[in-house]
Amino acid sequence: MKKDVILIALGGNAILQPGQDATFENQMANVARCCRWLVPLVEKTTIAITHGNGPQIGNLILQQGLSAGSVPAMPFDACSGSIQGLIGYMLQQSLSNELLRHNIDNKVVCALSRVEVSPDDPAFSNYTKPIGGFYSKEESERLEKERGWQMMEDSGRGYRRVVPSPLPVSILEHEAISDMLNRDYTVITCGGGGIPVTKELDGTYTGVEAVIDKDRTAALLGKTIKSDKLVFITEVDNVYLNFGKPDAKKLESVSLMEMQTYLEEGHFGKGSMEPKIIAALEYVRDTGGTAIICSLETIEKALEGRCGTTIVAMDRAGT
Amino acid sequence: MKKDVILIALGGNAILQPGQDATFENQMANVARCCRWLVPLVEKTTIAITHGNGPQIGNLILQQGLSAGSVPAMPFDACSGSIQGLIGYMLQQSLSNELLRHNIDNKVVCALSRVEVSPDDPAFSNYTKPIGGFYSKEESERLEKERGWQMMEDSGRGYRRVVPSPLPVSILEHEAISDMLNRDYTVITCGGGGIPVTKELDGTYTGVEAVIDKDRTAALLGKTIKSDKLVFITEVDNVYLNFGKPDAKKLESVSLMEMQTYLEEGHFGKGSMEPKIIAALEYVRDTGGTAIICSLETIEKALEGRCGTTIVAMDRAGT
Repeated sequence: MKKDVILIALGGNAILQPGQDATFENQMANVARCCRWLVPLVEKTTIAITHGNGPQIGNLILQQGLSAGSVPAMPFDACSGSIQGLIGYMLQQSLSNELLRHNIDNKVVCALSRVEVSPDDPAFSNYTKPIGGFYSKEESERLEKERGWQMMEDSGRGYRRVVPSPLPVSILEHEAISDMLNRDYTVITCGGGGIPVTKELDGTYTGVEAVIDKDRTAALLGKTIKSDKLVFITEVDNVYLNFGKPDAKKLESVSLMEMQTYLEEGHFGKGSMEPKIIAALEYVRDTGGTAIICSLETIEKALEGRCGTTIVAMDRAGT
Repeated sequence: MKKDVILIALGGNAILQPGQDATFENQMANVARCCRWLVPLVEKTTIAITHGNGPQIGNLILQQGLSAGSVPAMPFDACSGSIQGLIGYMLQQSLSNELLRHNIDNKVVCALSRVEVSPDDPAFSNYTKPIGGFYSKEESERLEKERGWQMMEDSGRGYRRVVPSPLPVSILEHEAISDMLNRDYTVITCGGGGIPVTKELDGTYTGVEAVIDKDRTAALLGKTIKSDKLVFITEVDNVYLNFGKPDAKKLESVSLMEMQTYLEEGHFGKGSMEPKIIAALEYVRDTGGTAIICSLETIEKALEGRCGTTIVAMDRAGT
């Protein structure tokens, strides 16, 4: 019997907690902890894993900036490939080790993936995604002039480079990813939203300096591999209405239409829960599959419908 | 009919020529040029590609050193994973584009790969492989003390960090690599000799700071995937006896025993041709397959036996 395919989208905190030093040891400890929660799923289901890369690619860009006189900096697409290699290794090693500890015979593979974005995406005329370190006003002006970077003042903390954040259009390596999932490999892919590329007139692809919305790439990946479920791992066990207020209401099983209404009412935090809800709705709408938002600790129960917030295509009564 | 499987081991110069600035543009131009020579092979055969990573990982380590106060440096195994992502992306993008230009329907996949080395390898008690930048005597002493690095004076140019260079024992992701080759994907893997890991007593794997000999990893990969041929791409069209001397003799088709004799006679340059010959002999001896040493420009003819130096298991007469 073919196992269910579950796509797990790890938030950035699964790899590096806010405020933690970005040492390899800290990151590996987090990733190992994360993988321990995934072990039971590998036995019962076929899993694909995607993940964020914000702090890691930010640090690489910062390193490149600090050593710019000695070593040529790589463009953003190349950095994105590097970080898929870095985080892919951490996840592959940690999950493989946990499976070995539990005598589970499953192979983990990390497939480097490029994701196409459209050159006509409005994001390319309105740069919004800050990346890398903070600069003074003077440095910022110099970088705009010398490197052609677009800079933006960031919440009084200084100036940062901003890049476009376009939507994903297609996953170029989707055939290989699907083939490996069909053979029950655990596949790590599309980290950080994927390496951003655009299609040229002759049909070839060129890398671009952009950060693809990783939650939307997760939705697209779920659609592409026809996953049965898409699970967004967050720091919280559930999605709430009026989060943090006295009348906060925990959401458990919610229909697509209900969640769409809550979204339009502005219940969810911009830049945190809202992009995940938008991506979850896209996935549920287009596939009829189930999207789940839950914490790492509750993932096993959430897949059984006993924890987390579940978004289903129909009302519970099937209407 | 199943196509022949050809493993191509690209030398470092295929990605960055000596003396060139290590910009992304220069590297992509080299890689694109390289991929143009590989296009005809993808049609006729199933190919796996492995590659060096010396200048790229050296630059990453240099960047990490120059920004050590701001961003924690990653250990060598993690850097090796990053660079598989970086070079993997360059090769995947370039080769895919060349195939698109030629209307060849073949998919290129880059599979991140860890390679096991033995903790008992004598390399771990005799560090020989210099990596990263050059330091003064004082900096070198400070790094030995603070970071526990082993440093060595390098040809009068300053002090460099040295790491062990152990032999590869097994390729952990070999099943996925073979599965993808069986489905006629072009597979990029084991770049830079692979991410070095050792096996712990409980059967799990831990990354180590070491540079695996990339030519020996190519030989092991060829054995593991049961490739029909292993091709080492070099700057020269052929292997020579008495290279650069008036009595230089070009080698064309050579038996295993003959080449073994030339090797023992010390005909080949340490650190350049010799490691390739040793790896080629290992591959031919253990598989009965054919090893070829040639330039990129002659690879198509070399595979037909019309160029390059070919090492075969038997004498030409079959004795």
